[in-house]
Amino acid sequence: MQRYKLTLAYEGTRYQGWQGQGNTENTIQRKAEDVLSRLTGERVELQASGRTDAGVHAAAQVASFALSRPVPCAALLEEMNRYLPADIGATALEFAPPRFHARLSATGKTYVYRIWNSPLPDVFGRRTRLALPQPLKLEDMQQAAALLAGTHDFRSFCGLKRFQKSTVRTLYSVSVTRRGEEVCLRFTGDGFLNRMVRILSGTLVEVGLGLRAPDSMTRILEAKDRSAAAGALSAHGLTLERVYYDDEIPAL
Amino acid sequence: MQRYKLTLAYEGTRYQGWQGQGNTENTIQRKAEDVLSRLTGERVELQASGRTDAGVHAAAQVASFALSRPVPCAALLEEMNRYLPADIGATALEFAPPRFHARLSATGKTYVYRIWNSPLPDVFGRRTRLALPQPLKLEDMQQAAALLAGTHDFRSFCGLKRFQKSTVRTLYSVSVTRRGEEVCLRFTGDGFLNRMVRILSGTLVEVGLGLRAPDSMTRILEAKDRSAAAGALSAHGLTLERVYYDDEIPAL
Repeated sequence: MQRYKLTLAYEGTRYQGWQGQGNTENTIQRKAEDVLSRLTGERVELQASGRTDAGVHAAAQVASFALSRPVPCAALLEEMNRYLPADIGATALEFAPPRFHARLSATGKTYVYRIWNSPLPDVFGRRTRLALPQPLKLEDMQQAAALLAGTHDFRSFCGLKRFQKSTVRTLYSVSVTRRGEEVCLRFTGDGFLNRMVRILSGTLVEVGLGLRAPDSMTRILEAKDRSAAAGALSAHGLTLERVYYDDEIPAL
Repeated sequence: MQRYKLTLAYEGTRYQGWQGQGNTENTIQRKAEDVLSRLTGERVELQASGRTDAGVHAAAQVASFALSRPVPCAALLEEMNRYLPADIGATALEFAPPRFHARLSATGKTYVYRIWNSPLPDVFGRRTRLALPQPLKLEDMQQAAALLAGTHDFRSFCGLKRFQKSTVRTLYSVSVTRRGEEVCLRFTGDGFLNRMVRILSGTLVEVGLGLRAPDSMTRILEAKDRSAAAGALSAHGLTLERVYYDDEIPAL
Protein backbone atom coordinates (compact mmCIF):
# COMPACT_ATOMS: atom_id res chain seq x y z
CA MET A 1 0.00 0.00 0.00
CA GLN A 2 1.13 3.54 -0.74
CA ARG A 3 -0.37 6.46 1.19
CA TYR A 4 -0.92 9.89 -0.35
CA LYS A 5 -1.42 13.43 0.88
CA LEU A 6 -3.80 15.40 -1.35
CA THR A 7 -4.48 19.14 -1.11
CA LEU A 8 -7.77 20.48 -2.44
CA ALA A 9 -9.24 23.94 -3.01
CA TYR A 10 -12.99 24.32 -3.35
CA GLU A 11 -15.75 26.84 -3.52
CA GLY A 12 -18.33 25.20 -1.27
CA THR A 13 -21.33 27.12 -2.63
CA ARG A 14 -22.86 24.25 -4.62
CA TYR A 15 -22.12 21.44 -2.16
CA GLN A 16 -23.58 19.89 0.97
CA GLY A 17 -20.18 20.14 2.62
CA TRP A 18 -17.18 17.84 2.67
CA GLN A 19 -19.17 14.84 3.75
CA GLY A 20 -22.76 15.91 4.29
CA GLN A 21 -25.19 14.09 6.50
CA GLY A 22 -27.09 10.93 5.60
CA ASN A 23 -27.05 9.63 2.06
CA THR A 24 -26.01 12.77 0.25
CA GLU A 25 -24.36 12.50 -3.12
CA ASN A 26 -23.51 16.11 -3.62
CA THR A 27 -20.46 16.39 -1.40
CA ILE A 28 -16.90 17.40 -2.12
CA GLN A 29 -15.60 14.12 -0.74
CA ARG A 30 -17.82 12.17 -3.11
CA LYS A 31 -16.78 14.20 -6.17
CA ALA A 32 -13.09 13.77 -5.38
CA GLU A 33 -13.41 10.08 -4.52
CA ASP A 34 -15.30 9.37 -7.75
CA VAL A 35 -12.63 11.02 -9.88
CA LEU A 36 -9.78 9.29 -8.03
CA SER A 37 -11.49 5.91 -8.20
CA ARG A 38 -12.14 6.25 -11.91
CA LEU A 39 -8.54 7.28 -12.64
CA THR A 40 -6.84 4.62 -10.52
CA GLY A 41 -9.25 1.75 -10.96
CA GLU A 42 -9.31 1.32 -7.18
CA ARG A 43 -12.04 2.17 -4.72
CA VAL A 44 -10.51 5.25 -3.09
CA GLU A 45 -11.66 6.53 0.30
CA LEU A 46 -10.58 9.97 1.39
CA GLN A 47 -9.97 11.06 4.98
CA ALA A 48 -10.06 14.85 5.29
CA SER A 49 -8.42 16.94 8.00
CA GLY A 50 -11.98 17.70 9.05
CA ARG A 51 -15.46 17.98 7.58
CA THR A 52 -16.27 21.43 6.33
CA ASP A 53 -19.98 22.31 6.61
CA ALA A 54 -22.28 22.91 3.67
CA GLY A 55 -21.32 26.16 1.93
CA VAL A 56 -17.88 26.46 3.57
CA HIS A 57 -14.88 26.91 1.25
CA ALA A 58 -11.31 25.65 1.39
CA ALA A 59 -8.14 27.22 0.03
CA ALA A 60 -6.16 24.15 1.10
CA GLN A 61 -8.09 21.24 2.60
CA VAL A 62 -5.90 18.16 3.09
CA ALA A 63 -7.08 14.60 2.58
CA SER A 64 -5.25 11.28 2.79
CA PHE A 65 -5.87 8.05 0.92
CA ALA A 66 -4.15 4.82 0.02
CA LEU A 67 -3.57 2.98 -3.26
CA SER A 68 -2.26 -0.54 -3.72
CA ARG A 69 0.80 0.85 -5.49
CA PRO A 70 2.85 4.02 -5.99
CA VAL A 71 1.71 6.07 -9.00
CA PRO A 72 3.35 9.23 -10.40
CA CYS A 73 1.88 12.07 -8.36
CA ALA A 74 2.29 14.87 -10.91
CA ALA A 75 0.47 12.93 -13.62
CA LEU A 76 -2.37 11.87 -11.31
CA LEU A 77 -2.77 15.46 -10.08
CA GLU A 78 -3.05 16.72 -13.65
CA GLU A 79 -5.59 14.02 -14.54
CA MET A 80 -7.65 14.80 -11.46
CA ASN A 81 -7.98 18.43 -12.51
CA ARG A 82 -9.14 17.35 -15.94
CA TYR A 83 -12.14 15.56 -14.44
CA LEU A 84 -12.98 17.54 -11.29
CA PRO A 85 -15.69 20.22 -11.62
CA ALA A 86 -14.42 23.81 -11.96
CA ASP A 87 -15.27 24.64 -8.33
CA ILE A 88 -13.05 21.86 -6.94
CA GLY A 89 -9.32 21.84 -7.68
CA ALA A 90 -6.50 19.53 -6.68
CA THR A 91 -3.52 21.75 -5.86
CA ALA A 92 -0.93 19.27 -4.55
CA LEU A 93 -0.36 15.53 -4.34
CA GLU A 94 2.55 13.72 -2.72
CA PHE A 95 3.54 10.40 -1.16
CA ALA A 96 2.91 10.25 2.57
CA PRO A 97 4.42 8.00 5.25
CA PRO A 98 2.50 4.75 5.96
CA ARG A 99 0.88 6.11 9.12
CA PHE A 100 -0.09 9.51 7.76
CA HIS A 101 -3.75 10.38 8.36
CA ALA A 102 -5.05 13.80 7.28
CA ARG A 103 -7.12 14.25 10.44
CA LEU A 104 -5.18 12.35 13.10
CA SER A 105 -1.77 13.64 11.99
CA ALA A 106 -2.88 17.29 11.79
CA THR A 107 -1.33 19.55 14.41
CA GLY A 108 -3.29 22.72 13.63
CA LYS A 109 -5.49 24.65 11.24
CA THR A 110 -6.16 28.18 10.11
CA TYR A 111 -9.68 29.34 9.29
CA VAL A 112 -10.60 32.76 7.90
CA TYR A 113 -13.99 34.42 8.18
CA ARG A 114 -14.42 37.21 5.62
CA ILE A 115 -16.80 40.14 5.94
CA TRP A 116 -17.61 42.75 3.29
CA ASN A 117 -18.16 45.69 5.60
CA SER A 118 -19.92 48.17 3.37
CA PRO A 119 -23.48 49.12 2.41
CA LEU A 120 -22.46 48.75 -1.25
CA PRO A 121 -22.98 45.43 -3.03
CA ASP A 122 -20.10 42.92 -3.15
CA VAL A 123 -20.47 41.76 -6.74
CA PHE A 124 -17.14 39.93 -7.06
CA GLY A 125 -16.75 38.54 -3.53
CA ARG A 126 -20.34 37.68 -2.72
CA ARG A 127 -19.78 33.91 -2.71
CA THR A 128 -17.01 33.98 -0.11
CA ARG A 129 -17.78 37.02 2.07
CA LEU A 130 -20.61 37.92 4.40
CA ALA A 131 -22.05 41.36 3.60
CA LEU A 132 -22.46 43.51 6.70
CA PRO A 133 -23.31 47.17 6.08
CA GLN A 134 -23.04 48.49 9.66
CA PRO A 135 -19.61 49.90 10.59
CA LEU A 136 -17.52 47.64 12.84
CA LYS A 137 -15.36 48.88 15.71
CA LEU A 138 -12.16 47.04 14.83
CA GLU A 139 -10.28 47.95 18.00
CA ASP A 140 -13.02 46.52 20.20
CA MET A 141 -13.02 43.34 18.13
CA GLN A 142 -9.22 43.08 18.41
CA GLN A 143 -9.42 43.52 22.17
CA ALA A 144 -12.05 40.76 22.40
CA ALA A 145 -10.06 38.50 20.05
CA ALA A 146 -7.01 38.74 22.31
CA LEU A 147 -9.06 37.24 25.15
CA LEU A 148 -9.84 34.19 23.02
CA ALA A 149 -6.23 33.24 22.33
CA GLY A 150 -4.83 30.50 24.52
CA THR A 151 -6.12 27.22 25.92
CA HIS A 152 -9.77 27.40 26.99
CA ASP A 153 -12.89 25.31 27.31
CA PHE A 154 -14.79 26.52 24.25
CA ARG A 155 -18.06 24.82 25.16
CA SER A 156 -19.94 28.14 24.82
CA PHE A 157 -18.79 28.25 21.19
CA CYS A 158 -19.64 24.66 20.29
CA GLY A 159 -22.58 24.13 17.94
CA LEU A 160 -23.16 20.45 18.68
CA LYS A 161 -25.57 19.68 21.48
CA ARG A 162 -24.59 16.05 21.89
CA PHE A 163 -21.67 15.18 24.11
CA GLN A 164 -18.16 15.76 22.86
CA LYS A 165 -15.21 14.15 24.60
CA SER A 166 -13.54 17.44 25.35
CA THR A 167 -14.35 21.00 24.38
CA VAL A 168 -10.92 22.29 25.40
CA ARG A 169 -8.95 23.71 22.50
CA THR A 170 -5.95 25.99 22.04
CA LEU A 171 -6.16 29.03 19.81
CA TYR A 172 -2.60 30.04 18.90
CA SER A 173 -3.76 33.30 17.38
CA VAL A 174 -6.90 35.26 16.57
CA SER A 175 -6.53 38.34 14.40
CA VAL A 176 -8.99 40.96 13.19
CA THR A 177 -7.77 43.03 10.26
CA ARG A 178 -9.29 45.40 7.72
CA ARG A 179 -8.15 45.95 4.16
CA GLY A 180 -10.41 48.36 2.33
CA GLU A 181 -13.98 47.15 2.74
CA GLU A 182 -12.91 43.63 3.76
CA VAL A 183 -12.65 42.64 7.42
CA CYS A 184 -10.83 39.33 8.03
CA LEU A 185 -11.16 37.25 11.17
CA ARG A 186 -8.34 34.69 11.17
CA PHE A 187 -8.16 31.84 13.67
CA THR A 188 -5.22 29.46 14.07
CA GLY A 189 -5.58 26.65 16.57
CA ASP A 190 -4.85 23.02 17.34
CA GLY A 191 -8.42 22.05 16.49
CA PHE A 192 -11.91 23.47 16.18
CA LEU A 193 -15.27 22.35 17.53
CA ASN A 194 -18.43 22.12 15.45
CA ARG A 195 -19.30 25.60 14.10
CA MET A 196 -16.78 27.09 16.51
CA VAL A 197 -15.28 29.60 14.04
CA ARG A 198 -18.69 30.81 12.88
CA ILE A 199 -19.92 31.25 16.47
CA LEU A 200 -16.69 33.01 17.52
CA SER A 201 -17.04 35.25 14.46
CA GLY A 202 -20.67 36.01 15.25
CA THR A 203 -19.73 36.97 18.80
CA LEU A 204 -16.82 39.15 17.63
CA VAL A 205 -19.16 40.89 15.18
CA GLU A 206 -21.59 41.66 18.01
CA VAL A 207 -18.66 43.24 19.86
CA GLY A 208 -17.83 45.22 16.71
CA LEU A 209 -21.42 46.45 16.52
CA GLY A 210 -21.30 47.58 20.16
CA LEU A 211 -23.84 44.98 21.29
CA ARG A 212 -21.34 43.31 23.64
CA ALA A 213 -18.35 44.69 25.53
CA PRO A 214 -14.91 43.39 24.48
CA ASP A 215 -14.27 41.96 27.96
CA SER A 216 -17.52 39.97 27.84
CA MET A 217 -15.50 37.26 26.05
CA THR A 218 -14.03 36.10 29.34
CA ARG A 219 -17.50 35.72 30.88
CA ILE A 220 -18.77 33.86 27.80
CA LEU A 221 -15.86 31.40 28.03
CA GLU A 222 -16.46 30.89 31.73
CA ALA A 223 -20.20 30.31 31.25
CA LYS A 224 -19.54 27.06 29.29
CA ASP A 225 -23.03 27.51 27.93
CA ARG A 226 -23.86 27.79 24.25
CA SER A 227 -26.55 30.41 24.90
CA ALA A 228 -23.95 32.81 26.32
CA ALA A 229 -22.40 33.37 22.90
CA ALA A 230 -23.89 34.80 19.70
CA GLY A 231 -25.38 32.90 16.78
CA ALA A 232 -23.20 31.33 14.09
CA LEU A 233 -22.54 33.49 11.03
CA SER A 234 -23.45 32.19 7.56
CA ALA A 235 -21.27 29.38 6.20
CA HIS A 236 -20.46 31.20 2.97
CA GLY A 237 -18.05 33.64 4.67
CA LEU A 238 -15.84 30.85 6.03
CA THR A 239 -12.74 29.39 4.37
CA LEU A 240 -10.41 26.68 5.66
CA GLU A 241 -7.11 28.32 4.80
CA ARG A 242 -4.46 25.83 5.89
CA VAL A 243 -3.82 22.58 7.74
CA TYR A 244 -0.55 22.04 9.58
CA TYR A 245 1.37 18.78 10.06
CA ASP A 246 4.29 17.66 12.19
CA ASP A 247 7.15 20.03 11.78
CA GLU A 248 5.04 22.85 10.36
CA ILE A 249 4.51 25.54 12.94
CA PRO A 250 1.19 27.36 12.83
CA ALA A 251 1.92 30.98 11.87
CA LEU A 252 1.29 33.28 14.82
CA MET B 1 -35.08 67.22 -16.50
CA GLN B 2 -32.41 66.09 -14.08
CA ARG B 3 -29.41 64.13 -15.34
CA TYR B 4 -27.69 61.42 -13.28
CA LYS B 5 -24.32 59.68 -13.24
CA LEU B 6 -24.62 56.03 -12.20
CA THR B 7 -21.69 53.69 -11.44
CA LEU B 8 -22.21 49.95 -11.79
CA ALA B 9 -20.16 46.86 -10.95
CA TYR B 10 -21.02 43.60 -12.65
CA GLU B 11 -19.81 40.06 -13.16
CA GLY B 12 -20.54 39.63 -16.87
CA THR B 13 -20.54 35.82 -16.84
CA ARG B 14 -24.30 35.36 -17.19
CA TYR B 15 -24.96 38.21 -19.63
CA GLN B 16 -24.84 38.93 -23.32
CA GLY B 17 -22.84 42.05 -22.59
CA TRP B 18 -23.87 45.61 -21.79
CA GLN B 19 -26.14 45.92 -24.76
CA GLY B 20 -25.94 42.72 -26.75
CA GLN B 21 -26.73 42.51 -30.43
CA GLY B 22 -30.20 42.30 -31.92
CA ASN B 23 -33.19 41.70 -29.69
CA THR B 24 -31.44 40.31 -26.66
CA GLU B 25 -33.13 40.59 -23.30
CA ASN B 26 -30.34 39.26 -21.17
CA THR B 27 -28.12 42.32 -21.05
CA ILE B 28 -26.80 44.37 -18.17
CA GLN B 29 -28.28 47.53 -19.66
CA ARG B 30 -31.71 45.94 -19.79
CA LYS B 31 -31.56 44.67 -16.19
CA ALA B 32 -30.51 48.06 -14.87
CA GLU B 33 -33.04 49.96 -17.01
CA ASP B 34 -35.87 47.70 -15.87
CA VAL B 35 -35.08 48.25 -12.20
CA LEU B 36 -34.67 52.01 -12.62
CA SER B 37 -37.90 52.30 -14.64
CA ARG B 38 -39.86 50.33 -12.08
CA LEU B 39 -38.52 52.38 -9.18
CA THR B 40 -38.99 55.80 -10.76
CA GLY B 41 -42.16 55.18 -12.76
CA GLU B 42 -40.41 56.69 -15.78
CA ARG B 43 -39.06 54.97 -18.88
CA VAL B 44 -35.32 55.20 -18.16
CA GLU B 45 -32.71 54.82 -20.91
CA LEU B 46 -29.11 54.32 -19.92
CA GLN B 47 -26.11 55.50 -21.91
CA ALA B 48 -22.96 53.66 -20.86
CA SER B 49 -19.38 54.86 -21.27
CA GLY B 50 -19.09 52.02 -23.78
CA ARG B 51 -20.58 48.61 -24.50
CA THR B 52 -18.76 45.81 -22.79
CA ASP B 53 -18.85 42.53 -24.74
CA ALA B 54 -20.63 39.37 -23.58
CA GLY B 55 -18.77 37.91 -20.60
CA VAL B 56 -16.74 41.05 -19.83
CA HIS B 57 -16.91 42.39 -16.25
CA ALA B 58 -16.90 45.89 -14.82
CA ALA B 59 -15.62 47.14 -11.49
CA ALA B 60 -16.94 50.62 -12.28
CA GLN B 61 -18.89 51.08 -15.49
CA VAL B 62 -20.49 54.53 -15.75
CA ALA B 63 -23.91 55.20 -17.27
CA SER B 64 -25.95 58.38 -17.57
CA PHE B 65 -29.69 58.87 -17.64
CA ALA B 66 -32.33 61.54 -17.14
CA LEU B 67 -35.44 61.76 -14.99
CA SER B 68 -38.16 64.40 -15.17
CA ARG B 69 -37.26 65.51 -11.64
CA PRO B 70 -34.51 65.37 -9.00
CA VAL B 71 -34.85 62.39 -6.65
CA PRO B 72 -32.71 61.63 -3.55
CA CYS B 73 -29.70 59.74 -4.92
CA ALA B 74 -28.80 57.76 -1.77
CA ALA B 75 -32.31 56.34 -1.43
CA LEU B 76 -32.59 55.44 -5.13
CA LEU B 77 -29.14 53.75 -5.02
CA GLU B 78 -30.21 51.63 -2.05
CA GLU B 79 -33.50 50.69 -3.72
CA MET B 80 -31.68 49.73 -6.94
CA ASN B 81 -29.49 47.28 -5.04
CA ARG B 82 -32.54 45.71 -3.48
CA TYR B 83 -33.89 44.76 -6.91
CA LEU B 84 -30.79 44.20 -9.05
CA PRO B 85 -29.55 40.59 -9.35
CA ALA B 86 -26.57 39.71 -7.12
CA ASP B 87 -24.12 39.87 -10.04
CA ILE B 88 -24.98 43.51 -10.84
CA GLY B 89 -24.44 46.20 -8.22
CA ALA B 90 -24.99 49.95 -8.23
CA THR B 91 -22.03 51.49 -6.40
CA ALA B 92 -22.60 55.24 -6.84
CA LEU B 93 -25.31 57.64 -8.00
CA GLU B 94 -25.08 61.42 -8.23
CA PHE B 95 -26.59 64.40 -10.03
CA ALA B 96 -24.81 65.28 -13.25
CA PRO B 97 -24.69 68.54 -15.22
CA PRO B 98 -27.36 68.92 -17.97
CA ARG B 99 -24.92 68.05 -20.77
CA PHE B 100 -23.25 65.10 -19.07
CA HIS B 101 -23.17 61.96 -21.25
CA ALA B 102 -21.39 58.85 -19.97
CA ARG B 103 -19.82 58.09 -23.35
CA LEU B 104 -19.35 61.50 -24.95
CA SER B 105 -18.07 63.16 -21.75
CA ALA B 106 -15.58 60.39 -20.92
CA THR B 107 -11.94 61.40 -21.24
CA GLY B 108 -10.37 58.00 -20.64
CA LYS B 109 -10.74 54.45 -19.38
CA THR B 110 -8.75 51.74 -17.64
CA TYR B 111 -9.18 48.09 -18.58
CA VAL B 112 -7.50 45.16 -16.84
CA TYR B 113 -6.89 41.76 -18.36
CA ARG B 114 -6.21 39.13 -15.68
CA ILE B 115 -4.32 35.88 -16.23
CA TRP B 116 -3.95 33.01 -13.76
CA ASN B 117 -0.46 31.92 -14.78
CA SER B 118 -0.19 28.48 -13.21
CA PRO B 119 -0.90 24.86 -14.14
CA LEU B 120 -2.96 24.58 -10.93
CA PRO B 121 -6.71 25.20 -11.04
CA ASP B 122 -8.02 28.69 -10.24
CA VAL B 123 -11.02 27.73 -8.13
CA PHE B 124 -11.80 31.16 -6.67
CA GLY B 125 -10.84 33.40 -9.60
CA ARG B 126 -12.00 31.27 -12.50
CA ARG B 127 -14.83 33.61 -13.52
CA THR B 128 -12.62 36.68 -13.91
CA ARG B 129 -9.20 35.32 -14.94
CA LEU B 130 -7.90 33.45 -17.94
CA ALA B 131 -6.00 30.31 -16.93
CA LEU B 132 -2.68 29.98 -18.76
CA PRO B 133 -0.34 27.26 -17.48
CA GLN B 134 2.75 28.08 -19.57
CA PRO B 135 5.26 30.41 -17.88
CA LEU B 136 5.25 33.97 -19.21
CA LYS B 137 8.38 36.09 -19.72
CA LEU B 138 7.24 39.21 -17.93
CA GLU B 139 10.20 41.35 -18.96
CA ASP B 140 9.60 40.68 -22.63
CA MET B 141 5.93 41.55 -22.20
CA GLN B 142 6.85 44.77 -20.40
CA GLN B 143 9.24 45.71 -23.18
CA ALA B 144 6.52 45.09 -25.78
CA ALA B 145 3.94 46.96 -23.70
CA ALA B 146 6.14 50.05 -23.63
CA LEU B 147 6.03 50.17 -27.43
CA LEU B 148 2.23 50.33 -27.34
CA ALA B 149 2.02 53.42 -25.14
CA GLY B 150 1.45 56.69 -26.97
CA THR B 151 -0.71 57.78 -29.89
CA HIS B 152 -0.92 55.19 -32.67
CA ASP B 153 -3.20 53.89 -35.37
CA PHE B 154 -4.42 50.70 -33.69
CA ARG B 155 -6.11 49.27 -36.78
CA SER B 156 -4.14 46.01 -36.40
CA PHE B 157 -5.78 45.59 -33.00
CA CYS B 158 -9.34 46.41 -34.04
CA GLY B 159 -11.81 43.52 -34.10
CA LEU B 160 -14.45 45.16 -36.24
CA LYS B 161 -14.15 44.64 -39.96
CA ARG B 162 -16.53 47.38 -40.98
CA PHE B 163 -15.24 50.89 -41.39
CA GLN B 164 -14.57 52.96 -38.27
CA LYS B 165 -14.12 56.71 -38.53
CA SER B 166 -10.66 56.64 -37.02
CA THR B 167 -8.62 53.86 -35.48
CA VAL B 168 -6.14 56.28 -33.91
CA ARG B 169 -6.12 56.12 -30.11
CA THR B 170 -3.80 57.19 -27.31
CA LEU B 171 -2.68 54.73 -24.66
CA TYR B 172 -1.50 56.70 -21.64
CA SER B 173 -0.05 53.62 -20.00
CA VAL B 174 0.24 49.87 -20.46
CA SER B 175 1.57 47.86 -17.53
CA VAL B 176 2.34 44.18 -17.07
CA THR B 177 2.66 43.08 -13.45
CA ARG B 178 2.75 39.81 -11.55
CA ARG B 179 1.50 39.19 -8.02
CA GLY B 180 1.79 35.57 -7.06
CA GLU B 181 0.15 33.50 -9.79
CA GLU B 182 -1.78 36.45 -11.20
CA VAL B 183 -0.48 38.44 -14.15
CA CYS B 184 -2.28 41.74 -14.76
CA LEU B 185 -2.27 43.62 -18.05
CA ARG B 186 -3.57 47.13 -17.37
CA PHE B 187 -4.40 49.58 -20.16
CA THR B 188 -5.29 53.24 -19.66
CA GLY B 189 -6.21 55.24 -22.74
CA ASP B 190 -8.47 57.91 -24.20
CA GLY B 191 -10.62 55.28 -25.87
CA PHE B 192 -10.57 51.69 -27.08
CA LEU B 193 -11.58 50.05 -30.36
CA ASN B 194 -13.71 46.94 -30.62
CA ARG B 195 -11.94 44.05 -28.86
CA MET B 196 -8.77 46.14 -28.75
CA VAL B 197 -7.78 45.19 -25.18
CA ARG B 198 -8.33 41.49 -25.77
CA ILE B 199 -6.32 41.55 -29.00
CA LEU B 200 -3.51 43.60 -27.40
CA SER B 201 -3.53 41.12 -24.49
CA GLY B 202 -3.41 38.14 -26.84
CA THR B 203 -0.46 39.65 -28.65
CA LEU B 204 1.37 40.46 -25.41
CA VAL B 205 0.79 36.88 -24.25
CA GLU B 206 2.36 35.56 -27.47
CA VAL B 207 5.37 37.73 -26.67
CA GLY B 208 5.42 36.30 -23.15
CA LEU B 209 5.36 32.77 -24.57
CA GLY B 210 8.31 33.58 -26.83
CA LEU B 211 6.22 33.27 -30.01
CA ARG B 212 6.85 36.90 -30.98
CA ALA B 213 9.74 39.24 -30.26
CA PRO B 214 9.02 42.23 -28.03
CA ASP B 215 9.98 44.68 -30.80
CA SER B 216 7.52 43.06 -33.21
CA MET B 217 4.90 45.38 -31.66
CA THR B 218 6.17 48.27 -33.73
CA ARG B 219 5.84 46.27 -36.95
CA ILE B 220 2.35 45.12 -36.02
CA LEU B 221 1.26 48.73 -35.41
CA GLU B 222 2.78 49.81 -38.72
CA ALA B 223 1.08 46.98 -40.62
CA LYS B 224 -2.40 48.43 -39.94
CA ASP B 225 -3.71 44.98 -40.69
CA ARG B 226 -5.74 42.89 -38.27
CA SER B 227 -3.99 39.69 -39.35
CA ALA B 228 -0.64 41.03 -38.14
CA ALA B 229 -1.71 40.77 -34.48
CA ALA B 230 -2.74 37.75 -32.40
CA GLY B 231 -6.23 36.51 -31.70
CA ALA B 232 -8.43 38.07 -29.00
CA LEU B 233 -8.24 36.45 -25.57
CA SER B 234 -11.41 35.17 -23.93
CA ALA B 235 -13.84 37.82 -22.66
CA HIS B 236 -13.98 36.42 -19.13
CA GLY B 237 -10.49 37.70 -18.22
CA LEU B 238 -11.38 41.32 -19.01
CA THR B 239 -12.67 43.92 -16.55
CA LEU B 240 -13.50 47.58 -17.17
CA GLU B 241 -11.84 49.09 -14.13
CA ARG B 242 -12.52 52.81 -14.34
CA VAL B 243 -13.89 55.58 -16.53
CA TYR B 244 -12.44 59.09 -16.30
CA TYR B 245 -14.25 62.40 -16.75
CA ASP B 246 -13.23 66.04 -17.14
CA ASP B 247 -10.88 66.97 -14.36
CA GLU B 248 -9.96 63.38 -13.48
CA ILE B 249 -6.54 62.53 -14.80
CA PRO B 250 -5.99 58.94 -15.92
CA ALA B 251 -3.51 57.38 -13.52
CA LEU B 252 -0.19 56.77 -15.27
